[in-house]
Amino acid sequence: VTRVTVLGSGSWGTAFAMIAADAGHPVALWSRRAELATTITIYHENPDYLPGITLPSAIRATADPAEALAEAEIVVIAVPSQILRTTAAAWAAAVPAAAVLVSLMKGIELGTELRMSEVLREVVGPSAHPIAVVSGPNLAREIAERQPAASVVACADPVVSARLQHAIGTSYFRPYTNTDVIGCELGGAVKNVIALAVGMAEGMGFGDNSRATLITRGLAETMRLGVVLGAEPQTLAGLAGLGDLVATCSSPLSRNRTFGENLGRGMTVAEVVAHTRQTAEGVKSCASILALARRHGVDMPITEAVVDVVAGRIAPAEMVASMMGRDVKPERTHV
Amino acid sequence: VTRVTVLGSGSWGTAFAMIAADAGHPVALWSRRAELATTITIYHENPDYLPGITLPSAIRATADPAEALAEAEIVVIAVPSQILRTTAAAWAAAVPAAAVLVSLMKGIELGTELRMSEVLREVVGPSAHPIAVVSGPNLAREIAERQPAASVVACADPVVSARLQHAIGTSYFRPYTNTDVIGCELGGAVKNVIALAVGMAEGMGFGDNSRATLITRGLAETMRLGVVLGAEPQTLAGLAGLGDLVATCSSPLSRNRTFGENLGRGMTVAEVVAHTRQTAEGVKSCASILALARRHGVDMPITEAVVDVVAGRIAPAEMVASMMGRDVKPERTHV
Repeated sequence: VTRVTVLGSGSWGTAFAMIAADAGHPVALWSRRAELATTITIYHENPDYLPGITLPSAIRATADPAEALAEAEIVVIAVPSQILRTTAAAWAAAVPAAAVLVSLMKGIELGTELRMSEVLREVVGPSAHPIAVVSGPNLAREIAERQPAASVVACADPVVSARLQHAIGTSYFRPYTNTDVIGCELGGAVKNVIALAVGMAEGMGFGDNSRATLITRGLAETMRLGVVLGAEPQTLAGLAGLGDLVATCSSPLSRNRTFGENLGRGMTVAEVVAHTRQTAEGVKSCASILALARRHGVDMPITEAVVDVVAGRIAPAEMVASMMGRDVKPERTHV
Repeated sequence: VTRVTVLGSGSWGTAFAMIAADAGHPVALWSRRAELATTITIYHENPDYLPGITLPSAIRATADPAEALAEAEIVVIAVPSQILRTTAAAWAAAVPAAAVLVSLMKGIELGTELRMSEVLREVVGPSAHPIAVVSGPNLAREIAERQPAASVVACADPVVSARLQHAIGTSYFRPYTNTDVIGCELGGAVKNVIALAVGMAEGMGFGDNSRATLITRGLAETMRLGVVLGAEPQTLAGLAGLGDLVATCSSPLSRNRTFGENLGRGMTVAEVVAHTRQTAEGVKSCASILALARRHGVDMPITEAVVDVVAGRIAPAEMVASMMGRDVKPERTHV
């Protein structure tokens, strides 16, 4: 039995708290809002993010970070990527010295172009706490329904990832270990941008041929960036790359895909946010991913087009036309 | 203007005839059944395979192979893979000497374990006719609706593929050239088997996480086989590999996925055939693909499980359980 703390009670944070509880651990779940924390603890449900799912009673929620972090051995972090730095700085002193940090977050920080584990490392300092990431084809709602899912737990230290693998594995959630943290985090971040592009094409009425083409070229540009940054191509071809990309681009549960669909139907970013009262990681991270690509001289045409659509510079129709109708060339240079 | 003949009036053969007609060519479409040929020529519709689609008037259909092949410059072949050898032998004498052969077929011949272009080469002999293949995320119905699609035209001779690329490109159908015929054909054949597995998981009620995991591992086993047989990994990561796999595994229009779904709901192969009056390439080719893999010592666990389900040796539930719930290991060895 390991004391697990999950910081962030959105859909993935809450579903991951379920996994940890089902794996036999006591779980403290931190929620920013005291009211939601009370509802989760008393009614065993997170009506805002996983309505209708009964949470295990081993999950206790609180809005007090110090209370959530007391005696934690594994600290799982699932907050929106662009607020990680300030949020983590506020918690850092309360994290027990021996705790392992696990990031579930998928984004690149604006301004610094850092991955989430890099932001965490800057906040907690160079010597403290191993940092791991968990990523894969893991739509939270399906996991909360205890449907079988495979995932990747990545850490530079294989002893840490093996320990986490055994701590959080359940009959329905199977983590595989990997040492390639860069590949896992990049795959997770870029896939949100590709899902926006796929959503736009669907919102405009295009079908599975277009979606499959965007996924194929999206993985190709993810690989180009990844290889330059030191990721393993195998990771990006695996569950945390291709797997996560396909799940996100296929599912009606994906916020990024749905956000893109609304853009494809002609709404502006502001209108989608106003209409759905949700944002999407890809909308936040696309500009920092493009900045990272440009800094390393990597061509990412889909990401570039998504940035232009999000900024209102081009219409989704122009993006899809340029993706599907570029001049005929040998395939190799494109993919 | 090039005289194009399409042999086979199923959904993909007919949609390809539309592409060639839209590209400005006169098209002769051979249909096995005289009645269907008459309907296509007179009513400009293929009610059996593309109901509701108006075919270009440049398409004339006939049930007479000699008439269809007279003066053909490009001969496109789209018949069920397991009858190619006998059918092609019957046509071979009528194919004009200078014609290029283009295979749209996705399968591996039972007994010989040959790809479709290899079967064609055996039938027409070593020196006659260049042979090319076209493959990609090309669901026929979407193409018949003139939705944008990208594809790959592969030939060992790049002059031939470039000529075909220009001959069959339209505003909505964009072919990219490739010299890797092996990769294109293997990607197309194995994806039907993976689509059966994905369909089974869906028929059993599993969601997008399972589908994405099966697609990821399915591509991995396709790559393992492909590399041993001389395919380029880049081809299998491109439109004719990953692209075709994702399109087929996502679409309700895919016969293989739908066939698998019925198996997942508990029907036997015989019951599905009786119920839907359709067969699926993957059901025919899975055994020959597995034989090819075994001959080369390649591990293909999904294909193996599909073969066992199709043969009635295991239930789909056992297949999915073994796919999703294998012992925890490092990811690298699996993908």
